[in-house]
Amino acid sequence: MSQVVQLNNTRKDFIFYIRQLHKLCEKDLSLINSIIIDKLDSDVPLVQEIASHLILSGGKRLRPLLTSCCFQMCKDNNDDERKYIGLAAAVEFIHAATLLHDDVIDKSKNRRGSLSANEVWGNNTSVLVGDFLFSRAFQLMAKYGNISVLKILSDTSVVISESEILELQNDKDPTINEDIYFKVINGKTASLFSAACQVGAMCCTKINQEKINALKSFGTNFGMSFQLIDDAIDYSSSTTMLGKNVGDDFKEGKVTLPIILAYLRSNNYEKEFWKKTIRHLDQNKDDFSKAIEIINKYKCIEDTIDRAKHFQILQKTV
Amino acid sequence: MSQVVQLNNTRKDFIFYIRQLHKLCEKDLSLINSIIIDKLDSDVPLVQEIASHLILSGGKRLRPLLTSCCFQMCKDNNDDERKYIGLAAAVEFIHAATLLHDDVIDKSKNRRGSLSANEVWGNNTSVLVGDFLFSRAFQLMAKYGNISVLKILSDTSVVISESEILELQNDKDPTINEDIYFKVINGKTASLFSAACQVGAMCCTKINQEKINALKSFGTNFGMSFQLIDDAIDYSSSTTMLGKNVGDDFKEGKVTLPIILAYLRSNNYEKEFWKKTIRHLDQNKDDFSKAIEIINKYKCIEDTIDRAKHFQILQKTV
Repeated sequence: MSQVVQLNNTRKDFIFYIRQLHKLCEKDLSLINSIIIDKLDSDVPLVQEIASHLILSGGKRLRPLLTSCCFQMCKDNNDDERKYIGLAAAVEFIHAATLLHDDVIDKSKNRRGSLSANEVWGNNTSVLVGDFLFSRAFQLMAKYGNISVLKILSDTSVVISESEILELQNDKDPTINEDIYFKVINGKTASLFSAACQVGAMCCTKINQEKINALKSFGTNFGMSFQLIDDAIDYSSSTTMLGKNVGDDFKEGKVTLPIILAYLRSNNYEKEFWKKTIRHLDQNKDDFSKAIEIINKYKCIEDTIDRAKHFQILQKTV
Repeated sequence: MSQVVQLNNTRKDFIFYIRQLHKLCEKDLSLINSIIIDKLDSDVPLVQEIASHLILSGGKRLRPLLTSCCFQMCKDNNDDERKYIGLAAAVEFIHAATLLHDDVIDKSKNRRGSLSANEVWGNNTSVLVGDFLFSRAFQLMAKYGNISVLKILSDTSVVISESEILELQNDKDPTINEDIYFKVINGKTASLFSAACQVGAMCCTKINQEKINALKSFGTNFGMSFQLIDDAIDYSSSTTMLGKNVGDDFKEGKVTLPIILAYLRSNNYEKEFWKKTIRHLDQNKDDFSKAIEIINKYKCIEDTIDRAKHFQILQKTV
């Protein structure tokens, strides 16, 4: 199976820098984790069981990490740390709620190296526990936030759901153009990264709008790059990276940039391959290797990384 | 088919009083409707199409009506009407979001006399449009509310999702006790009625906590009575009442108080009937009539209405 060498370096660099950040924010992340555990509590024991299954299963806590970093960068001595800790947990809860609903929609069987909640407890329970986590997120915002924070996070939730519907509308269609893809990843991923950054900064009393806007933009760019690299990695090797199984997107017929570029550049014979495997999900065991072959033939991974570079955040690591 | 006469009177009285209230609040409801239509707007046309299908399909707007009534009762001349109009729309959006997810979970084919959204567009789209409406609700709260209002409505959303999970856990089990049923209808129905009342009052500057608590309690009692009567009506006749089809709960194997009481009072032969029809959803065309027969034999509708009376709100109408 072909390997895209740059991505192995990207992965190493990404993990190295995230670990550095985790180390820097160790105390904060531990407080965020405590509040997450505390807020998973419910009168209905099943709620706690399912929510814990997902949210305590070793996610990278990337979004709360961004909230933490942005707060620490902008704070002065008088700022109340509890506020942003609660809001970072809220951001993680929104993320977890969308994962639960995503897994129902994508019929995913695995998440973070375990069986997905929908696989263990069924779709209906996953939908409702997603609603619970989403509600908990707003409860945390009402407790630790202010109206400006609530505006940003509710706007973000609207955008997330809209972009997920846009994605669903174009499900398994390898002929979609890049614009739709970028709109989807902007809404589904980058918007919450951006909100996580803004919220951290907004917990600081002496912050000005200019700095908040700079972090908003940073979050968006980081989120776009992150998703592009994540989508590239799915076609990069046979090993598990970033907590996801390589080949998952292909197996689900998920149309990401490598597929969009590959389809566009394919000859008629190859186009039929994409229609068979992606649109009709008619796949046999050699098809993933064949997909990587076509993707590499047309340098679609390199071009996906190039698009990530445009967002200027992962430049050092790609 | 047997008919429970009291319920026909109840229905007439309910519709009469609701119409009176609708008339009193006509201008307010029209403003609430305008903001609902405005906020159904989305960059993704499908979102608007599906959300409109549900939310503009002739619901009774009971919850916004309560918000309206409570505001009008408590306001003084300086209070800003726009606030509560926005929040009443938020309450309706939360309600609509739960309906969309409920219909997915119950596999309902109809809603408000039309095909349900999940029947037309599929479960996945319904889940995501539910998320959209829920997010829109919090966007409206961030625009028109304050932190106290947000606290109440996010607490309510948590309770709604928890009680839906509790209901799902006890799905199709006619042997559950009344406590579980009351916990479920309190969470699923009464909590939002209660929040709708409180939010209306809280938009008034000169309101005191005592009045808010009184309206909170009124909303809960009204919601409990409403749900009990609604559940009784499902076994009352062959006509359509309150916008729902009689017999729907039975067809779905939904365990409501008439069933809980009937099962408890049934002889062994009848208990087998409930297990067959409710637990295993093994039903033939005469089974609904037979269910009504057993329910009437043990006076389960009368006792359901009695329980409603305990909540002291529908006393005049039952």
